[in-house]
Amino acid sequence: MEYKNVDIIIGYGKKARRAYGMNEIALVPGTCTLDPALIDTSWSIGGIKRDIPILASAMDGVVDVKMANLLSDLGAIGVLNLEGIQTRYDDTTPIIEKIASVGKTEFVELMQKLYAEPIKPELIKKRIENIKSSGSIAAVSLTPLGASKYGKIVADSGADLLFVQATVVSTNHLTPESISSLDLQQFCKDMPIPVVFGNCVTYEVALELMEAGAAGILVGIGPGAACTSRGVLGIGVPQPTAIADCAAARDEYYKRTGVYTPIIADGGIITGGDICKCIACGADSVMIGSPVARAVEAPGRGYHWGMATPSPVLPRGTRINVGTTGTIEEVLIGPAKLDDGTHNLLGALKTSMSTLGAQNIKEMQKVEVVIAPSLLTEGKVYQKAQQLGMGK
Amino acid sequence: MEYKNVDIIIGYGKKARRAYGMNEIALVPGTCTLDPALIDTSWSIGGIKRDIPILASAMDGVVDVKMANLLSDLGAIGVLNLEGIQTRYDDTTPIIEKIASVGKTEFVELMQKLYAEPIKPELIKKRIENIKSSGSIAAVSLTPLGASKYGKIVADSGADLLFVQATVVSTNHLTPESISSLDLQQFCKDMPIPVVFGNCVTYEVALELMEAGAAGILVGIGPGAACTSRGVLGIGVPQPTAIADCAAARDEYYKRTGVYTPIIADGGIITGGDICKCIACGADSVMIGSPVARAVEAPGRGYHWGMATPSPVLPRGTRINVGTTGTIEEVLIGPAKLDDGTHNLLGALKTSMSTLGAQNIKEMQKVEVVIAPSLLTEGKVYQKAQQLGMGK
Amino acid sequence: MEYKNVDIIIGYGKKARRAYGMNEIALVPGTCTLDPALIDTSWSIGGIKRDIPILASAMDGVVDVKMANLLSDLGAIGVLNLEGIQTRYDDTTPIIEKIASVGKTEFVELMQKLYAEPIKPELIKKRIENIKSSGSIAAVSLTPLGASKYGKIVADSGADLLFVQATVVSTNHLTPESISSLDLQQFCKDMPIPVVFGNCVTYEVALELMEAGAAGILVGIGPGAACTSRGVLGIGVPQPTAIADCAAARDEYYKRTGVYTPIIADGGIITGGDICKCIACGADSVMIGSPVARAVEAPGRGYHWGMATPSPVLPRGTRINVGTTGTIEEVLIGPAKLDDGTHNLLGALKTSMSTLGAQNIKEMQKVEVVIAPSLLTEGKVYQKAQQLGMGK
Amino acid sequence: MEYKNVDIIIGYGKKARRAYGMNEIALVPGTCTLDPALIDTSWSIGGIKRDIPILASAMDGVVDVKMANLLSDLGAIGVLNLEGIQTRYDDTTPIIEKIASVGKTEFVELMQKLYAEPIKPELIKKRIENIKSSGSIAAVSLTPLGASKYGKIVADSGADLLFVQATVVSTNHLTPESISSLDLQQFCKDMPIPVVFGNCVTYEVALELMEAGAAGILVGIGPGAACTSRGVLGIGVPQPTAIADCAAARDEYYKRTGVYTPIIADGGIITGGDICKCIACGADSVMIGSPVARAVEAPGRGYHWGMATPSPVLPRGTRINVGTTGTIEEVLIGPAKLDDGTHNLLGALKTSMSTLGAQNIKEMQKVEVVIAPSLLTEGKVYQKAQQLGMGK
Repeated sequence: MEYKNVDIIIGYGKKARRAYGMNEIALVPGTCTLDPALIDTSWSIGGIKRDIPILASAMDGVVDVKMANLLSDLGAIGVLNLEGIQTRYDDTTPIIEKIASVGKTEFVELMQKLYAEPIKPELIKKRIENIKSSGSIAAVSLTPLGASKYGKIVADSGADLLFVQATVVSTNHLTPESISSLDLQQFCKDMPIPVVFGNCVTYEVALELMEAGAAGILVGIGPGAACTSRGVLGIGVPQPTAIADCAAARDEYYKRTGVYTPIIADGGIITGGDICKCIACGADSVMIGSPVARAVEAPGRGYHWGMATPSPVLPRGTRINVGTTGTIEEVLIGPAKLDDGTHNLLGALKTSMSTLGAQNIKEMQKVEVVIAPSLLTEGKVYQKAQQLGMGK
Repeated sequence: MEYKNVDIIIGYGKKARRAYGMNEIALVPGTCTLDPALIDTSWSIGGIKRDIPILASAMDGVVDVKMANLLSDLGAIGVLNLEGIQTRYDDTTPIIEKIASVGKTEFVELMQKLYAEPIKPELIKKRIENIKSSGSIAAVSLTPLGASKYGKIVADSGADLLFVQATVVSTNHLTPESISSLDLQQFCKDMPIPVVFGNCVTYEVALELMEAGAAGILVGIGPGAACTSRGVLGIGVPQPTAIADCAAARDEYYKRTGVYTPIIADGGIITGGDICKCIACGADSVMIGSPVARAVEAPGRGYHWGMATPSPVLPRGTRINVGTTGTIEEVLIGPAKLDDGTHNLLGALKTSMSTLGAQNIKEMQKVEVVIAPSLLTEGKVYQKAQQLGMGK
Repeated sequence: MEYKNVDIIIGYGKKARRAYGMNEIALVPGTCTLDPALIDTSWSIGGIKRDIPILASAMDGVVDVKMANLLSDLGAIGVLNLEGIQTRYDDTTPIIEKIASVGKTEFVELMQKLYAEPIKPELIKKRIENIKSSGSIAAVSLTPLGASKYGKIVADSGADLLFVQATVVSTNHLTPESISSLDLQQFCKDMPIPVVFGNCVTYEVALELMEAGAAGILVGIGPGAACTSRGVLGIGVPQPTAIADCAAARDEYYKRTGVYTPIIADGGIITGGDICKCIACGADSVMIGSPVARAVEAPGRGYHWGMATPSPVLPRGTRINVGTTGTIEEVLIGPAKLDDGTHNLLGALKTSMSTLGAQNIKEMQKVEVVIAPSLLTEGKVYQKAQQLGMGK
Repeated sequence: MEYKNVDIIIGYGKKARRAYGMNEIALVPGTCTLDPALIDTSWSIGGIKRDIPILASAMDGVVDVKMANLLSDLGAIGVLNLEGIQTRYDDTTPIIEKIASVGKTEFVELMQKLYAEPIKPELIKKRIENIKSSGSIAAVSLTPLGASKYGKIVADSGADLLFVQATVVSTNHLTPESISSLDLQQFCKDMPIPVVFGNCVTYEVALELMEAGAAGILVGIGPGAACTSRGVLGIGVPQPTAIADCAAARDEYYKRTGVYTPIIADGGIITGGDICKCIACGADSVMIGSPVARAVEAPGRGYHWGMATPSPVLPRGTRINVGTTGTIEEVLIGPAKLDDGTHNLLGALKTSMSTLGAQNIKEMQKVEVVIAPSLLTEGKVYQKAQQLGMGK
């Protein structure tokens, strides 16, 4: 399968493809509508079936043991970052307090200091066991390097799902001879639990990761609010295009092997509408950060920051004061107290599916999409312009 | 008839069509101009002829009995929402006062409480009779569920036109066995008065609704200022594209049957220019909310809010303080006191038609349209930028 | 000649053409550069040769007798509005003072009152004679209706050029039997002085106006800063497209008849760069309003307002406080005191032509143009964003 | 080779090509990733090999002798402007102080006064010798006129590289008989040191400059933050398109002659991501101004201004208070103290190349590029909108 639309000429000899962003698309109702009561939003990953196709990001301000339990109880999944503050500090309360209290200019330096503290294998074990002891699904995250170091402990501690995540993951990673790179295929074989890989954005890499044995694929590079890959590195593919490409790889792989590897859209998802759009482009579920960080139970206490922030040489990703707007239950399954699409995400998905006549996730992946002028241009900005008196 | 321009590849396997927004189009004068005195802006719906092709939305803050009478006298139509506060409360004055007085954070909760009060059939009867007693056209609105409950009372009370409205209406609505859905075709047959259906955005659904017996079609999903369908649900089709598609269905249906079913553009219309553009894309008339809400006689007293706001689980649509800028007469037929296009909407339409050389609505539907860079980008924002010193 | 690119489908049955705006284009240097000393910017209209291809708009705040003289002396042309305050009031000083002093809300009403005062033929005569007595070029403007009333006085008073201007002018204007429309062709024959017509935006109308005997064509509907045609009426064609179309009509007419009818781009021109772009799209000269209104000698005293503002039923066009930034000499031929492109417009044109290797206006009309992302998006907004701390 | 995509019809008879801007493109990871330790970012110009493909602009506020030494030590190149204040004043400290202290309105006038002081050949000599005495690479810049005057002194003083720069440079410059234009080909032959020409933006001119003997080509007209070519002159080509065109000329010239002439992207580069994008479009290195001006060691003391500002007749380019954010070492090779992409530019390039699987500059020039919705629209503005409460 080849890119069929690399038809834009940037200049002599450099061709490009047009990729589409979240604010550029909208969903179109079909000829049928459905009562919400008939909607089935369930999905499966690594043999685990969940009613809500939403995962919370493996970020310090988003998921801790308590949040993982709450999410699991609601029917979703919270992924715990095993290389963040949760495994570097036993008591994270004073750490979070410090992060919330420093000024913008001291933030990067503080994060670099906090992350200088080494990861403690016994804390990995403790966190996983704490989640499992509540009967919750223990989904945890490691970098490829961390996976080679701590993969065995994770499996031994009883985790249900392991996410191996880097900004970009690929089966073909070249390293100097002194450092051995993680062989993803071998790792999948060795691990007794399902392994999800990410992030990727292309058909080719998604297919390779599935062939390596991935139980799921995280899709998204450079689109997130607390992530500055595109600004700092120039790298980034808008989610709708990345999802549609990787979903095609999933369908191709399923056709070849009969194995269905779910696609998880990760990054840049703020509202219920964003979730609906991701699934309409082919995703099976979505991973969200800031909407969960805004829950009162979130470890970040109203703050949210990126995973690349503590980098000692090239910090990226800003700390944002997202505030707290309601309980995680209100955020996920309502009732909504806000009318801006950030509460009752499941309700929004169900209402959208009902309006579009899609009975389940597979049908939702097939609804009609249009390219439409950005809501920011046509809607919000216009509204704001009026408030500022620009419309008068 | 098939979509002929689904030629945009979002990603492998997901194709899309480009839809165009109100701020992306502009009208082009032809080779002839006309004196305004020669312009005929009249249109008909359900056998009722009106001189002004404008309807006021069935929203609490826009139309009450008084406003319906004023609009009817001026040559337009006001549609009364029969499932809003007008039929839940006999005296709506204190209700409106409460709505206007609460803060932004308490608003959603208040609306949910106010709508917990049941609809009273006797108030449906009373409101309609009050409108009729002034000799005005009684146009009223119900949801599909409400239509099955209260349709008979509406007809018995002497209403002239019934609007059956949901975010999305379709002839094919799947429900659990316990709830029976409204059979639109049967309903039209049973009702002794003309029934208008909405909202829809596609050629297929518009055609089906006409075949079901619709006396008119409301077009517009997700483009309105007080409506957040696109943000919360991901759903929305820009008006020019939706109108042009549904107008094509109208022309096709007329060719087949000789029956002309008018298209009413509903949502996102703020200025006279917006009205002109909607008609130029094929609409026979427009339904407006916020411009009427800004009239001093409007029930909202300077406030405007969406119909989905009171939802107990997924409130959508914000209350906006639109203010009051003049009488409904000034808004509709002038003379204008403002120079921003929100006063003398009929005058604007006539001046535009005169400038474009279109003698009546049918000719206006055929004027040349260009895709042009957003006025916001090229004009207003630039202006504002200058004021902010960015242009210096 | 037919539109060859009406290939955008807005929706079924409504096709459109893409038109391009001023902020969407940029000029590309060729293989040759020129010393500014070799540049010839002269142009001719109605047998009058001028060194500067710039005209000042026939607007109350832009041109009075004094400004017409100053512009003529510098090598440009100022067009006096004969249906504005200059011909309604003998002493305009207190009138301008009132306009400058009222608040935004009272402005429209004041203008309507001021324009209720009838036009005085003796003032038409006086203004023209005052201009001529200084040896300046007397260029004046009337509406079509005004032209039929006052055309003879204008010619008898010794005017050099008459501009017959309406928002949209066409050879084919339908009127009720009681009012006779101006026959442009007959009018041109009867007038002993050259007549310029405007405004138009299409190839067809430009060609018809040339065939009617126009000495020049004003191009531009809906693009100006002090004009809200697009917002209020939905009408407007971005300048680059309108100019390129009308320039093609000029070239076609020249090929047929040997008569060269210059194209004057009118509206939306703020900077030297705008002037360069208009000529690069095919214009022979430009008409500017706000840059002249910002001269200390301008009648508007730092204010600028549109011609449609005083309309008794549909006022359009806002009064903008443009301020004063330098003398008309600094604005037109420098030296520039500002670095934003609004001073030394001729110097900017010469520098641009020099950089692009265009020796005269005809060569400048042929330079390469690219469609480029809006400067507002890529440049100014980015800069502002940084200042606001958004870039950090 | 011909433009193959001049397929946009602005209007009848004026066709244009679409050019792409920096904010419209993004880079796509391939199927391979690399450890940063394996990345080689070196490049060569005029026989001089450098580890960092970054040059600092020949601007008063960016490079003085001290900065040239610092940059050379770090592995980069600083180009000294030999027609700025460094060669007009022996002691530049009080000059810089004045520039920093005057208000916005007096700035242009001050610059015009300061530049009235003549260039002193002995200062040219002194500055170059000062750089060489520290063992640094002495790269200096002159205009074409300055090159004919001072070229010999530059070579005699021991400079390593001469940049001959004008807004637009071309081999074919027409001048009045009294002034002789610089023959670039002859000049290259006569100069004993490598000569870099700029700026250009097209395939044709880049090829001609290479044929004239250029040791390198500066690419970029009108895209810079402290440059207002597009606003004032209408001239400008977005960098990605200009780079891709000129890089094609480089490849063509190499194929013909075996001589590889590096392309230096100059203008509009702010972040590490911008650098990555320029190279991905075909550049061999980049020239940056404002990121260096923000270094504490920069001569501008937190201010940055354009080279065209002192023009006596048409000043262009604004003075911007860019502030100081860190040492030049932090800016260039880190560690970064800021997370916005303006610190550790080399680290960003290496991380990007590592993520994209590009081992050296030649491979980086071939990575996949997508056209993506502007980050400003999708990201930053959205974020800001939320902060302003627009997202709520």
